[in-house]
Formats: sequence, structure tokens, C-alpha cells
Amino acid sequence: MSRIKPSKEEIQRVKDATEQIIRRINEKAREYGIPARAICVGSVARNTWIRGEEDIDIFILFPEEFSEEELRSEGLRLAKSVASEYEERYASHPYIHAFFEFPVGKNEEEKRVEADLVPCFAVRSASAIKSAVDRTPFHNDYLKERIKGLEDDVLLLKQFLRALDIYGSELKTMGFSGYLCELLILHYGSFINLLKEASHWKFGTRIDIEKHGTYKSEGKEPLIVIDPVDPKRNVAAALSTFAFCRFIDAARSFLRKPSQRFFFTEAEEAEMSKEAFLRKVKERGTDFVMLVFDAPPVVDDILFPQLRKAAISVRKLIERNEFVVFRHDFGAEGGKAFLLFEVFGELPAIQRREGPPVTVKVHAERFKRKHLALNHIVRIDENGRLFAEFERKYRSVVELLSDKRNLLGCSLGKHVSEAIESGYKVLKNEEIEFFEGIGKFFKRYFSSTVSNDV
Amino acid sequence: MSRIKPSKEEIQRVKDATEQIIRRINEKAREYGIPARAICVGSVARNTWIRGEEDIDIFILFPEEFSEEELRSEGLRLAKSVASEYEERYASHPYIHAFFEFPVGKNEEEKRVEADLVPCFAVRSASAIKSAVDRTPFHNDYLKERIKGLEDDVLLLKQFLRALDIYGSELKTMGFSGYLCELLILHYGSFINLLKEASHWKFGTRIDIEKHGTYKSEGKEPLIVIDPVDPKRNVAAALSTFAFCRFIDAARSFLRKPSQRFFFTEAEEAEMSKEAFLRKVKERGTDFVMLVFDAPPVVDDILFPQLRKAAISVRKLIERNEFVVFRHDFGAEGGKAFLLFEVFGELPAIQRREGPPVTVKVHAERFKRKHLALNHIVRIDENGRLFAEFERKYRSVVELLSDKRNLLGCSLGKHVSEAIESGYKVLKNEEIEFFEGIGKFFKRYFSSTVSNDV
Repeated sequence: MSRIKPSKEEIQRVKDATEQIIRRINEKAREYGIPARAICVGSVARNTWIRGEEDIDIFILFPEEFSEEELRSEGLRLAKSVASEYEERYASHPYIHAFFEFPVGKNEEEKRVEADLVPCFAVRSASAIKSAVDRTPFHNDYLKERIKGLEDDVLLLKQFLRALDIYGSELKTMGFSGYLCELLILHYGSFINLLKEASHWKFGTRIDIEKHGTYKSEGKEPLIVIDPVDPKRNVAAALSTFAFCRFIDAARSFLRKPSQRFFFTEAEEAEMSKEAFLRKVKERGTDFVMLVFDAPPVVDDILFPQLRKAAISVRKLIERNEFVVFRHDFGAEGGKAFLLFEVFGELPAIQRREGPPVTVKVHAERFKRKHLALNHIVRIDENGRLFAEFERKYRSVVELLSDKRNLLGCSLGKHVSEAIESGYKVLKNEEIEFFEGIGKFFKRYFSSTVSNDV
Repeated sequence: MSRIKPSKEEIQRVKDATEQIIRRINEKAREYGIPARAICVGSVARNTWIRGEEDIDIFILFPEEFSEEELRSEGLRLAKSVASEYEERYASHPYIHAFFEFPVGKNEEEKRVEADLVPCFAVRSASAIKSAVDRTPFHNDYLKERIKGLEDDVLLLKQFLRALDIYGSELKTMGFSGYLCELLILHYGSFINLLKEASHWKFGTRIDIEKHGTYKSEGKEPLIVIDPVDPKRNVAAALSTFAFCRFIDAARSFLRKPSQRFFFTEAEEAEMSKEAFLRKVKERGTDFVMLVFDAPPVVDDILFPQLRKAAISVRKLIERNEFVVFRHDFGAEGGKAFLLFEVFGELPAIQRREGPPVTVKVHAERFKRKHLALNHIVRIDENGRLFAEFERKYRSVVELLSDKRNLLGCSLGKHVSEAIESGYKVLKNEEIEFFEGIGKFFKRYFSSTVSNDV
């Protein structure tokens, strides 16, 4: 636990810093004559951050009467005015990632502290929000008292998920958000109880702490956790089926054989060398075909859904051309984005196209006419259907993907499509460049995704 | 027409021979005191044989009171007694294939004549038959007068079907029997009318000349032609879907562009040389895998259904092992029987097995336990299902089929199974031996099975 739980000193330091930032913002607001006030939200507000991983989230609440434009300009002005340095960022709303340098803790050293400063509207209820960020203060209000006494369980859960690579609701990870973790612990009462219940979860498991009963699922979400403060919202909406199942699997394994190993992956995941990768390729006898292009200049939350969509669409293109795809994956590392397809070798020179049954006169005659005109051979199979034999256009996945028109006919997403339009490479096996981060990617690709304790 | 229709001389010669044989049999019967009489049936009886292709069928009718054993012994004795030479054969019933040498025609030369002499029961009606051969005299009675004036149309149809390789109802060909041809001409009135109607045939087309209306199809027969003399029998029962469709296709092409070519395949189908075969293999980029064994000593009507069944069953075995089968075929030539599979190259070293969704606890745990115990890698896919990766057992079709246990697990048919049990070879591409008849087989394999006129 001591490896996960922040020390008293860390808590004191973070709390001190948070209070100072809030005080500064509130002072500036008075100075500027802006009717705004800052509050601390998230894991820092509720003592549920993992040791050394504090994310200080300060929300600056503005009256509802402000326009979006006023909120934006005044909110950012206020936030910028208190920071030593800052970056302007954008999620669903613009905010400031601020750096502070001030004496914190007992020893009065200058410490650099980072915090997100997020302007939002102080609406009456979470169902009356103007943007997603307006909801966060309500989450804070809901959990602040209720989670007391359960902080350690929240920390265990977060670390358990981190070790499984499914912590965080960003669209790259599609895992469990911090808020979701706290709600799950609140609902089931403890980390162990959660695992016990999760080991029996089914697709579409529904958790409705406040018994709102109003949320309508479209049936695609593996887990539904109705937001206590907003009955129309599923807190687990971003959770992938993969992450959901990985958690269930790990829960079962942990319960059978509890161990620290579930929280700390021994030796930080090593990079895989190119040599080791090529050994794997040879051992498996498959071909690894990578489509690489410059990562478009957008945040991961924009990029990853497009990569996911593109990978599935290109996989379908490959399969339509009769290649067998063993697995596919995608990623963005070191300024590059890529789609990866593990496929089965080459195809023969001929291709077969199935046609209609001979008895369907109009279609049979059309099929025959079309293929004979192209000098294809047409035959009748034992079930009385026509089929044509002709020369295959693409005998390898590399040939197929090297033709840009094929790719641009796929559903790639706007930015990925633009990036590919302006150039890409198709690399196979030993041609694959081991740029920054790719060794880690492959390490993960070849590792098991179930807990190997049974 | 003159190439198809027997000349006056041929007709006279055949008729003379037939009458002499019948006379001899009837004389012998009187001599032996057997109350039997011979009649001529089939195409010779009805002048519907193709020039130079006469099949003299003489049936020897015995009283119903005779036992099967008496019919057999007395019938064969009678038949043997009249022949110069003979072979004893067996279809659904034993019969004698007899050779005669006697002066025929004007020039009184010694001519060798062949005829089938078939003992059968003279039953009251075709629905009271004891064996399939007893039905034949009824067919003869039914058609003898009705077909008069339509003989040329019957000949055209038979020759048209011969050129398409779908004439004959033996289980090797599964085409149109002579009796079926005559009924179709009788029903539609002419060869051209038959083609016009056939070009619109659907699966399950029903022809009921005598409006019996009683036949119940199991839905698998492409064409139902109810026997005018036996309402429970489909005359087209042995017709394959392939032959049915090939005829429809050719009918359409002929009607669009009538030509002698439909009756006479230019230059008798040549043999394909091994060199030409290997060029085809290279051109197509596929692998030809042939499983060869000594043809079991049974007639084609027994052997071919077993080969057909074996080929389908072994194809399924191949496909279960994840190989792609482009086409399959089978045959028996020169004392050998074989199954042929045109397949796509080799498979990678790894194999993937799909498992249950993680959420189905008992099955998921069992799948995981089983595969981890075998040192397989287990993963979760994006849909939350488990899958295992492990070393593939057979990377090529040759390896797969070389393991006799795999083959004997297929449904091969009794004689094929025994033949394979006692030894077989698996040959690929250039290893395939070009024994007697195999060149013709491949010639046909690579040729189109539709009429190339559109």
C-alpha cells in the first residue's frame, strides 16, 4: 500500500499548493472585478491520487449569465494571470495547463507545481450543463463526502488498472476513468468486493447507484454506470469491450491467487529489439505489413479513434482481397502513426469469383457475358452456380496497400486520410523501421493479454 | 443430321441381328422347356440410337411365378446358350453381355455383334416390379408408338448432350438417360421446343406427362420427370445439378446462335501433356495435390459415388485445417482412383483458435486453463472474446493428407476407405504421375463448362 498511497508529506505539499493557487485566482478575480471563484476537484480534492501522480485540477466557476465567449476570454485571462508559465490546451473546452513556482512544504524550497486551470459555468444542476466540464464540480460534490474512508480501495483499483494498461478514459486507452473507479468502489464497498462482482459481469452490466433508472443503452456498451448527478449519462461510455473483459479476467485471476504482481508489472516493460522482432516473425511464419505515415498534428483523443476506424476499414479491404489477417493493431509513436497487419503470405495468380445459379436466367447471362468479354474462364460448380476464374490483381498485401486509390477508398477519418494522402510507406517484416516507441509497441503486441494465473 | 442418324444399311443390319438373336433365344427356350420370351427394348427397339452407337438390349421375360433364383439361373443359362462369347455382368441384376458372329446385311459377311441379354420378370404393371429391370419393357411399351416421328429430335438431343459430356445416367456421369431424353422430346414436342423451355428451367422443375401428380420430391432433385409407367419414380433422379445447369446454359447459347459446333466438339478432346499441365500450375500459382490409390475392384456405379463423397469429405478436412481449396475433382483412370485438390500454398507456423467471450465465466476459464497448460498464448480480442495462439500442426496440405489417420477419419465410403487403408500416395504438382487417362482428365479440368457463346 505504501508504494501506492501518497505520504503525509506529499499530501501536505499538494494541499498547500492547491490552496495557494485557489487563493491567488480568487484574489485576481476580485482585483479584475470578475464574479468567479476557484475550487479544487478530482483526485486531489478527494485524496484519491496515486503516490507521485498528483493531477491538480482547479475549476474556475463563472455565473451562468456569462456568454460562452466571456467565459472563455475572462476565464483564460484569469488563469494565465496567476501562472508562472502556461500552455493553452483544449479538450471539450479551452483550459490552461499552468506551472507555478513557489515555496511549498516545511523546507520552503522553491518547487515547481503543475495544475490544470479550467473555466466552467456554475450551473444549477448537472443536467443543465452547457459543456462537459460544467459537470465536474457536481461529481466532486457527490463524491467528496461519500468516498471518505474508501480512498485506499480507490487507490488499489487505480493501480490494478494501471498495471493492466486500462486506466484512463482517453480514446487511446478506452479504459476506466478516475471518476468511474471511485463510483465502482462506492457502489461495491471495497476493492475486493468489486473484483468478486466483476468476475461475474456480463456484457451490458448496469450499475445505477442513485436508482435513476432512466438511461437507455444502445446495446453496444459493455458496462453502464449511470452518472449519479446526470441520469442520462453513462460514466463508462468510453470503456472498450477489450478493457472491460481484460478487467474481468484479471479480477478472476487475482481472486484465485492474490499477489502484488497484479499491481506492479515486474521490471518496467522492456523494448523489443528489431532482432527479437524478426525472430518472432520467422517463428510465426506470418508477414507483418506496416502502413506508416506522419502523425497528423491532432491530440490523441482525435487521432486514436481515427486510427482505430482506419485499421478496421483497411483490414476489411485486405480481407475483401482474400488475404487472411491474423491480427491487426495501430499506434502513434515518435511523430509517426501506423496501422499494422499480421497476414498470411501471398495468394496464387488466379482468383475465383462466385456468380449466380445458372437457373437465374437474367443474372446468369449477365455474369457470363461480362466475364467472357474479359476473357475470363466461366464454369458451373456442383451446385449449379456459375463462377469465373481470372488473373488476380494483387498477390500480396504490400501490392494492395501500395496502391493509394485502394486506401483512399477506405473509411479513414479526416486527419488520417489527409496524412495518408500526402504520403505513406508500406513496409514488410525486416523493412519495418524501429523508430522511437515501436519496440515498446511490439513488446506489447506479442505479450499475452490475459492474466496467466488460472 | 446424317452424321447422327444411322443409315438405312445400319438400321437394316442392326434390326436383322436383333431379330436373329431374339429368334435364337425363343428357340432355345422352347428347347429347354422354359416359358420365357425375348423382346427388344431401348433405343434399338425405337430407332433412337446414334449412328454407329447401337446398344442392342434384349430382355428375356419370365413368368412372375418364377423365383428370383430360378430367374437368375435359367435366364443366364438361356442367354449364355445363344452367345458365341459372353461376359457375365451385374447392374441391379445379373445379365449377360453377349457376342455373336453371324452373317448380316446384304453382303453376308461375318459380323461381330454385341448385345446385352437381360432376364427379367413379366409383371402385370410397372408398379408391381420385383427389380428395376422389370420396368424396362413397360418403358418400351409406353414409348414405342408415341415416339414415332420424333426419332430425329431424340437423336439431336442425345448428340447435344454427348458433346456436353452429360449423356448417360451412370453415376460417373450423372447425366440424362436415353429414356429421359425420349420423354423430354415427347413432352415438349421437339428438340428446339425443349431447348426453349429448358432455358427457363428452375431448380425443381416438374414434368408429369401422364398427370399422375403423386410424386413427392425431397427437394434435392433439380429436375423431376415422373415416370409415365411408375408414378412414384423420378426418371431424372440420377441427374446432377451440374448436368442440369450445364444443359440449361447450353440451351440458351444454342438458341442465341445455333451451330453444328454444339453437336460436334472440334477435334476430339486432346490429352494434356505433363509439360502443359505444369505450365498451367505455374500460371495459376496454385498447388495441385493428388491423393492416388489403386482403384478398388468395383464397377463405376459403385466407385464414383464413393469418390464423390470422399472428395467432399477430404475437402472439408482440408478446409477445417484452414487451407483454401480453389477447386476439387476426382476420377478413376488406368486402374488408379484419385482425389484432386487445387489449393493455396502453405500456412504460417502459428495458428489461432477462437474461444468464448470472457464474460462466459465457466467456458472462458476452461478455455484459458486448457491453452495455458499447453503453453499457448491466450489473448482477448477487441470484441472481448478469448483466442489462443499456438504452433500449427500441418503447414501444407501434403503433410495433412500424408497422415493416414486424418484421412481415415473422413467419410470415404467402404471400398475407397479399404483401398486407401492399404496404401496411397500424396503427390504435388510435378510429382503427379501422368498415368493412362490423366491427360484427358486434366484437359477437361481446365476447360470451360459453359458454352462460350453469349
